[in-house]
Amino acid sequence: MVSIGDIGERALLSRILERMPTGREHTLLGPGDDAAILAAPDNRTVISTDTLIEGPDFRLDWSTPQQLGHKAIVVNLADIAAMGARPTGLVVALAAPADTEVAFLESLASGMADALQRQAPDIGIVGGDLATAPQLVIAVTVFGTLDGAAPVTRSGANPGDIVAIAGAMGHAAAGLDLCFGGALQAGAPALPAAQRQLIEHQLAPNPPIDAGVTARIHGATAMLDVSDGLLLDAHRLAQASGVTLDLRPARWRDETLALAAKRGCSNEEALAFELNGGEDHALLATFPATVDDAPTSLPVPFRQIGVVQQSADAPVTVDGAAAPATGWDPYAAASTGTTSR
Amino acid sequence: MVSIGDIGERALLSRILERMPTGREHTLLGPGDDAAILAAPDNRTVISTDTLIEGPDFRLDWSTPQQLGHKAIVVNLADIAAMGARPTGLVVALAAPADTEVAFLESLASGMADALQRQAPDIGIVGGDLATAPQLVIAVTVFGTLDGAAPVTRSGANPGDIVAIAGAMGHAAAGLDLCFGGALQAGAPALPAAQRQLIEHQLAPNPPIDAGVTARIHGATAMLDVSDGLLLDAHRLAQASGVTLDLRPARWRDETLALAAKRGCSNEEALAFELNGGEDHALLATFPATVDDAPTSLPVPFRQIGVVQQSADAPVTVDGAAAPATGWDPYAAASTGTTSR
Repeated sequence: MVSIGDIGERALLSRILERMPTGREHTLLGPGDDAAILAAPDNRTVISTDTLIEGPDFRLDWSTPQQLGHKAIVVNLADIAAMGARPTGLVVALAAPADTEVAFLESLASGMADALQRQAPDIGIVGGDLATAPQLVIAVTVFGTLDGAAPVTRSGANPGDIVAIAGAMGHAAAGLDLCFGGALQAGAPALPAAQRQLIEHQLAPNPPIDAGVTARIHGATAMLDVSDGLLLDAHRLAQASGVTLDLRPARWRDETLALAAKRGCSNEEALAFELNGGEDHALLATFPATVDDAPTSLPVPFRQIGVVQQSADAPVTVDGAAAPATGWDPYAAASTGTTSR
Repeated sequence: MVSIGDIGERALLSRILERMPTGREHTLLGPGDDAAILAAPDNRTVISTDTLIEGPDFRLDWSTPQQLGHKAIVVNLADIAAMGARPTGLVVALAAPADTEVAFLESLASGMADALQRQAPDIGIVGGDLATAPQLVIAVTVFGTLDGAAPVTRSGANPGDIVAIAGAMGHAAAGLDLCFGGALQAGAPALPAAQRQLIEHQLAPNPPIDAGVTARIHGATAMLDVSDGLLLDAHRLAQASGVTLDLRPARWRDETLALAAKRGCSNEEALAFELNGGEDHALLATFPATVDDAPTSLPVPFRQIGVVQQSADAPVTVDGAAAPATGWDPYAAASTGTTSR
């Protein structure tokens, strides 16, 4: 077993780079110089950054390096999608202990490449940074283009709009619950396929990245990606827009029943996963209720989960009852020892 | 003393944001949404990323939070300058233990703001990410524009070109040597002002960021910022360009003597700091020897330190003798316990 300390930065970089796509359409200057150059076809670049850190954000006894690489890419792509933009490229800064196996980082790079192949096959990793750290740090910054259009921010929702979602609700949270329950421990009994899928939602989610552009084209008034919990992120959208979001669980009861069946839990527990869970990186968006006096037909894969109302005391209600802004706060979680978000 | 775990992510974010400029000229959408939007006036964005990690990259018993914030900004700006570009904005991902004092991160943010005010007063921090980690992690990604011009890469040096440098040589390395010698330990004797300056070069460097655009305008054929050591980075430029760089220490002997006097060391030791030191983030560039048949006059603050020759066995020579590619390798350094680079 060869560690990255054995082969040094230059050899490691070359082993990682040969596994990663450097991009086609948008990459004007790829890795290897002091900086990369990415095309910005409409004179603007959409930018988001997100860091995954061993311990607070992931555990190496739960995630494979491929899953980690996959997740680091898609959670960043989801932020670009949430603006109604399409991704154009990424940069990746990796820091790892010097005794990390080279094969581990090669697998992580392969996981990144596979995620890009699946979710954004024309773009690549245009630059990065390699460093040492006491534990693994994956810092990704992602870029996108709006192709001349206005961004879909969090602040445009209007009373009367439809509240809709694209992507899974609560699956990643149910998967995390299975992980905490010991499902991945050595010697644990084999899991049913449905439960393995839920864990896969947590460890290597596949949010509907393309749905971001779809939402913009279909007139979405506000959007964000649900990263910290549906209720918490709904609060953020409601407060940015100055409205109240009323969620109507009866509208997605079939999904709740299906999640309960997959997880093997009560319908109430399944609904709690859906309302408090975040790491599916679903897209939460609002759409006008009518277009040209006809009722809006939501674009696939969006489905209605609520309605936008005039701002009331509570920014978010569930069937009219005030809902708390429960969800992920990294600092609060750190004090209670919670892992992941 | 209030920790970041006490106040939570949202309050911390607001305390940090109020200290940071969000940018004027280029910021189309600043912090607060899923992504930021930055202007790219010539349809291209220059991008670089660099991460500072407590332990390998800095020590909290040496650096103040202001110095850390300053350094995280300028080492990134230097990468943009090294392409011949001017900075347009940055994103910053911060991860810190939950028991970190709020005041510490406020000071770090102020250090970032001061560095921007000094080095790039029109740009701002357009987005970021807050997370927890077992030790402090500062991941910065920086953006720039070439204003329609071609980038100055590492690969354009031609035999006959002048090798030139802008910024300090060896000062940061001499300062690091003082730190390792115990100069910052509690109870250590007060240092002479000249030595305090050298330590400041290490902990909060101020490379000549504007000189990057100056070099491009004056026809620089290749450029990089000296981050890992003059000899090592000279090797990188030489190999990318397929040439040999011959450095001529007699050309900067006055600087070597001045550094020896500041540090209180021999001239030979001072030259070793200059040749092996990197963290001044000076700009190493090559320029044609003549323009319109007249000898090139190098733009301020560049001065000649060598000449470009046909590729020989050694990519870098010093007065004609092969020079090793000594300098910083994070993985090799980690195995020997070295801090900083």
